[in-house]
Parts: sequence; structure tokens; C-alpha cells
Amino acid sequence: MAEPRQVGPSNYFNVKDIDALAPEHADLVRRRVAVLGPSYRLFYDEPIEFVRGSGVHLYDVNGQEYLDVYNNVPCVGHAHPRVSAAIAAQAAELSTHTRYLHRGIVEYSEQILATMPAEIGHIMFTCTGSESVDLALRIAKYHTGGTGVIVTRNAYHGVTTESAAISPSLGGLASLPPWVRVVDAPDARRVQRDGHADLGQWFAAQVQGAIDDFASDGVRFAALIVDSIFASDGVFSDPVGLLKPAVDVVRAAGGVYIADEVQPGFGRTGSAMWGFERLSTPEARLIPDLVCVGKPMGNGYPVAATMMRPEVIAEFGRDLRYFNTFGGNATAIAAAQAVLDVIRDEEIQMNAVVVGEHLRVGLREIAKRHPQISEVRGDGLFIGVELIEPESGTPNEALMLQLVNGLRRRHILIGTAGLYNNNLKIRPPLVFSKADADRFLAELDATLTECVAVR
Amino acid sequence: MAEPRQVGPSNYFNVKDIDALAPEHADLVRRRVAVLGPSYRLFYDEPIEFVRGSGVHLYDVNGQEYLDVYNNVPCVGHAHPRVSAAIAAQAAELSTHTRYLHRGIVEYSEQILATMPAEIGHIMFTCTGSESVDLALRIAKYHTGGTGVIVTRNAYHGVTTESAAISPSLGGLASLPPWVRVVDAPDARRVQRDGHADLGQWFAAQVQGAIDDFASDGVRFAALIVDSIFASDGVFSDPVGLLKPAVDVVRAAGGVYIADEVQPGFGRTGSAMWGFERLSTPEARLIPDLVCVGKPMGNGYPVAATMMRPEVIAEFGRDLRYFNTFGGNATAIAAAQAVLDVIRDEEIQMNAVVVGEHLRVGLREIAKRHPQISEVRGDGLFIGVELIEPESGTPNEALMLQLVNGLRRRHILIGTAGLYNNNLKIRPPLVFSKADADRFLAELDATLTECVAVR
Repeated sequence: MAEPRQVGPSNYFNVKDIDALAPEHADLVRRRVAVLGPSYRLFYDEPIEFVRGSGVHLYDVNGQEYLDVYNNVPCVGHAHPRVSAAIAAQAAELSTHTRYLHRGIVEYSEQILATMPAEIGHIMFTCTGSESVDLALRIAKYHTGGTGVIVTRNAYHGVTTESAAISPSLGGLASLPPWVRVVDAPDARRVQRDGHADLGQWFAAQVQGAIDDFASDGVRFAALIVDSIFASDGVFSDPVGLLKPAVDVVRAAGGVYIADEVQPGFGRTGSAMWGFERLSTPEARLIPDLVCVGKPMGNGYPVAATMMRPEVIAEFGRDLRYFNTFGGNATAIAAAQAVLDVIRDEEIQMNAVVVGEHLRVGLREIAKRHPQISEVRGDGLFIGVELIEPESGTPNEALMLQLVNGLRRRHILIGTAGLYNNNLKIRPPLVFSKADADRFLAELDATLTECVAVR
Repeated sequence: MAEPRQVGPSNYFNVKDIDALAPEHADLVRRRVAVLGPSYRLFYDEPIEFVRGSGVHLYDVNGQEYLDVYNNVPCVGHAHPRVSAAIAAQAAELSTHTRYLHRGIVEYSEQILATMPAEIGHIMFTCTGSESVDLALRIAKYHTGGTGVIVTRNAYHGVTTESAAISPSLGGLASLPPWVRVVDAPDARRVQRDGHADLGQWFAAQVQGAIDDFASDGVRFAALIVDSIFASDGVFSDPVGLLKPAVDVVRAAGGVYIADEVQPGFGRTGSAMWGFERLSTPEARLIPDLVCVGKPMGNGYPVAATMMRPEVIAEFGRDLRYFNTFGGNATAIAAAQAVLDVIRDEEIQMNAVVVGEHLRVGLREIAKRHPQISEVRGDGLFIGVELIEPESGTPNEALMLQLVNGLRRRHILIGTAGLYNNNLKIRPPLVFSKADADRFLAELDATLTECVAVR
């Protein structure tokens, strides 16, 4: 087995290749690196300068159109006219904060909480998913009195000090502080090959092991946080019922379960509005203690939130106030309200079901012709396609990078995911149509054929 | 001396008083508390529902106009048409992220860095001041290898786990982790009364004491972070040259100096674009290692940034990438660019000089008639007015709260600051005119007379 990279996707432009770019872009990239410094990255061997977006399409500076199969933030489509109009109208009127009364935030809060299980009673607004996760951890630690947090092996939960500390995908396992433990993501094929028939029990046993490890190290346990579709781990969507045994273990140990819905939330998985809801069954209801939402919430406007059971915020609320200057401002709420309205009115979630299924059927057809595809996973419009070396079965990151850059040359935008960086991450704007899916499938098939022929 | 409150401003509505509100507002507040939970606060004994803003004015749901002497975020005025138009145009076009090339972010970065000392070479974009401070601390700790951070006694630097941990104004000194030390803010009157003639040397000696304390506790020192106008401590603007000796001490100990410009930045202090610049002299240049900006940067659009000397990001940039989904997106940059353009074109900084001086002259006139005012401090449109019990000289928080609510009834919006919560915090939108200042002064004079008569 290849050594896990654990440093995140690598389909980035290498600044050393700057002279190979067209002169105008080379100059812009040079100026960019000069001001933004060494921590910023550009996608692709040949970065793209986009100037306009609409629906599932992005247009570069030369007017060339690209199909967006990557961006999950513009969930109702790039520059959706209803969302843009709501932002424009509210920004021209008032953008002030939550220490004054504003009807919009109350109405939006009531509506979004109504999409949650009844147990989730409160919402607090931030500006980014990172801030939402950070706040959830603050509250969880204050409530439990513990510090220990369990995450999956290649998790990504944010970029604040606290949320980056629980994100092994950023800096690898060596970067994790002593109050973080990792468990393996539920990669069903591998886990079952290793002889574990019941994925839920296997996952719960890992969580119990991490809790025991905390105990023996004198770290008081606080929380299990998981992205409900394990996006950064490679997109693992099954089985339904997966998390409940682990959450039982967490609660028995006095900890809380935080659902990171920044990626699967807002209907992307089709079968449910929220990723954790997909994994819930009538017999084994999965109710988080805290829920973090972000990215698609404002279709690009910076707005995010943490929702929770009232009991977990009781102590924090008694002792500490919370104020986020821009969090829940009138324009942020107008953007979020418009997104929620469009999701409902344009039946976005149903589109994710239908087009997602169409995509998976098509991908499995392609897989029959290409032994490099070992598995197609996911639900709705959140899909992972795993690439291997057909002979050895080992992860094939090299092919993945060829494929991503090959698709880019064919004007298809796509990303990568997973511990071994060998999964195509398919998560387009949710207004992706069957025709868009067919175009993507045809280009993927052709690019894969091309890449394999070259090797 | 009264016991410091150290829990931040207290001019908040008490939910127990809900039945005293007009029925329609009582209902809205009840619904709000039900969804937002116990950590949110509303200003004033009688909260206000604003629906529109323009320049320095806010309008409530009944069409009543209020003069805004409080809000620093809408620095070029509420809903400035040029900023709103820039947001509307860009949101309708494209709002995507920094992993694609976009000319706007490069041009804005070059322009904002040009307002900084030449030593500050890079900028990284976030969405909030909290994220900017959090990122500055991540970088400072990575660069120095230390963890110890020094702040002022009633500092506020943000609400993420990391930035809240260095904000004693949120939870008091007892809430601070072992890697934080506090020093007193440069309250010149008190310090000089205690026999210290040179405030800069006095401040540096405190910082050295904190560094020594870290050393004896085995904590490696990382950074001194100060708000360059000490807003949360009560607004202390003088003397010029104050910080340089402390920063020399910091650097000699291997630490870095982080300038928190979230409050004083973008021309508010009139005499300089940046608060640290005010404190710099040709003989003793004050150049931060890292600079955090936020609140007014987008006039209400969530955009913020961390700027730095290239050498402090070298190790972080070598080992870690940074990506903030919404940070530096095309619409955030359009908002920030419009704000910078308006600051220049409308000569906002010069207005802060002229109207700020007019305000301080007027406030000192009022102070002659009201012995409850012990001091008027500040620069440009960032002013602190300290209230005491005239007989004992002790901080007068009770009068402060009467005053804030009395002014609110006269449709003047103002806030409080300081360790003893006994300073009026005057920091209106920077388009505040002399006529606005005169209106505020007249109402303040009348309210003060009224409050003192009632007591």
C-alpha cells in the first residue's frame, strides 16, 4: 500500500513552471505570488482566469466556456439571479448586525431549523464553515469539560487554529495536537476485505478505541466530529445506519457528536437535506448534538452557522455571550434566504437525486471499459470515483492528476479527494442537468482513454 | 478602585424585561431568543428594529431616524451606493475563489500593500477580523516556535477559539489559558499618577515582565498583539512613540509584534491610515511583523485580511498551504476595492481629522460643565470619554448605562468601552459631518444634565 500523502489535493500549479505560461498570465501569476505569498495555490498545470459564471458554467477571460463539475459553493448555480438580486437589494438598504432587531434573521432561523430534527433548537451565525466548526468545538468543550476530539484520518474541518488542528488532511498526522485522535473512514470495500462485516460496529469500535486511548493518556473526551459524507477521505456514503453505534459510544463516554454538514448539507446528497439525515433510520435515529453548515449556504456570500440541541449550549450561554460582527448580518441573511427559497422552488434536491443517479449509472458503464476505476461511490450530486493501478490494485494518484489536467484542457473542471489522492471528487452546482452529466461522462471516457494510451 | 468587570460592555437588553416591550417587539424578541439561544445580545433597554441605513443615519421600522455614533463597520456610510453597486455588479457576474486566477485580487492587494510600510510585503484574505487574528497567531507561532502571547488587560481580538483565548474582555482573566499574559493598557493619567513619567518605557517594562514570567513557567514566547488604539481597554491614543520600546523588547526575546488594526485601521484615526503608523516616528519607526485588518474593510461585506513581512511566513509557506473558501472571493474584493476607492475619492481620512478635532473640542467644553467627565481621549473619529464619580474619582458605569440608554431615547446610537465599562466609545461612520457632531454634542450635554439631575 502506498504511503498516505495526507497533505491534501495536489492538482496545483507549480510556480517553477511560470515561464511556460502565456506571457499575460505569467505576468499576472508573478504579481499574484508577489502579493499573496507562498501559501496560496492555483488549480491545474495551466491556471484559468475566470471572469463570469452562470448556472453550471464558468467563462474565462477569452470568453471560453467551462463545465463546472467541481464547485459546491454555488449550489444553485453561479451568480444565480435571484440570489444576486437579494444581495444587491439588501446591501443597498442595510447590512448591520445582530445587536439590533431584524426580522429577516428570525424568519430565516425558524425556516432552517424546521429542516432539522426537532431536537436541534438553536442556531448561531458565523461567516465561514471554519468559524462554525470552531464555535461547535468551543461549545462542545465548554459543555463536556473535555478537550479530546476524534476525527477521520484524512478529515478537513477548517483553517482556524482550532479547526485546522483537527484537520489531518492539511498537515498530516504528525501535525495533530495531543488532544486529537484519528479513526479510519468507512471505506467499505477495504474494511470488508479485512473481515469486518458490520461497518457500523467496526466504526464504533474504532471510536471506542480512541476514547480508551484518551483515557489512558489522561485526556478528557469531548467530541466526535465527522463530515457526514467523508468528502476529504474520498466520499464514503454508505451504509445507512453507519454512525449510530459510534454515536452511542460517544454519548456513553460523555462526549457529543458534531455533524459537519459544510460539504453534504443543503440537499447535495439528494436523498436528504442533510448528510446525517441520510444515515438516520426510523429504528436508529441519528440526531447530532451540534451541526455545522457553511459553503453553499449563501451560494458564495460568506455566511455559515452552527446549530445545536439547546442543552449543549446551556453552560456556554449562561457564562459567555457570542457576537460575530458580520455573522447573520442583514445581507448575509438575505443571501441565505434566497438560496433556501431557490432550493425549494426549483426542486434542487430532487434534481440531485435524478442527475446524481444518472451520473453514477454512466460512471459505472465507463468503469466496465476502464479497469483503472475500482469503485463509484456517493449519493445525489456528491460522487467519488476511485482510481487504481489495475494490476496491483494500488491507489493511482499519477493517473488522477493526468485526468484532472486532461479534463481541464477539455474545459471540464473537476477536483480530487482521499487519503491517497486517487478519487475524482464530483460535486457540481446542484442545477447540473442530465445533458451536463452526459457531456462530462463523454469527456471523462475520452480523457481516460487518452491518459491510459499515453502511459 | 472598583473591581474590573472584564466581561465587556453591558448595555444589553435583559430578556427578563421582555413584557415591558411593545407587543409586536416583545413577540419578535421572544421568537429571536427561541431560535438564537442564550448567547446573543440586543443593545439597549429597549432594542431597536432597523430596516434601512444611509450615511450616518439608521431608520427603524416606523421610519424614525437615528444618528449613528457607534458603528465602525460601515466606515464610508451605511449602504454606500458605490460599495453596494460594486457588490451587486460582481455578485451578478462571479463570486468564485482564489484557486482560479482573478485580476481583482491582485490589483487590490497591490493597492492595500502600498498603504503599508515597504517591509509588509504579503497579504492573505479571510472573512472576519477573528479569522485574521487567528491566522496571524498561527503564523506567529509557526515562525517563532513559541506559544506565549501577550495582550492588554481588557483586550478583545476575536471569537474563534484561538482569538477568544487572547480576549480577556470576553470571559475575564480567569478564562485565559496558561500561554497568555496580560499587561495594563497605557492609561496615561493613571500611569503617570503612579509615578511613571515615560509611558513607552513603562509599557516595555510590563512586556519584559510578561516575557520573563513566560520564561520562568517554561512557556516559549511568540507574540505581542495590541489593538493600536486600545479600543476595548477604553481608547488610549497617546503618546506617539508608545509602542516602539516594547516592540524592541519583543524582538530581543525572539517574538513578533502583531498590530490589530481591525478597529483603528482604514483612516479612522485621521492622522494616519493605520493605527500603528500614528505611533511611528521617523527616529523610531514602528513596523509590525503582522497586521490584522477587518471590520470596515468591506463596509459590511465579510472581508478581512492578514498582512505580514515575508520572513515571518517563510516557514508556514514552505510547509502549509492556506485556503479560505470565501476569503478574497471576487465579490469580497469588489466590496473592498470600492471602499478603498471611496476612502480616497471622498477624502474620508481628512474628514476624520477635521470632524474628530471638532468633536474633541466640543466634548472638552462639555466636560467643563460636567465634572463626571474626567478625560476625553482619541484621534480622528475614534474617541473615548471617561466617566467618573466626581467626588471619589472612581469609574462610573451606572451613569454610563443611563447615558447610553438616554441617548438612545434621543435617537443617538453610542457604545461603551473600557476595563470598568465607563467610557463612551465614539466611532461613527467616517462620513460624520460637523453638523452631525454638533447634534451629538447637544444631545450628550442635555442627556448628561438629565441623568445627573435624576440621580
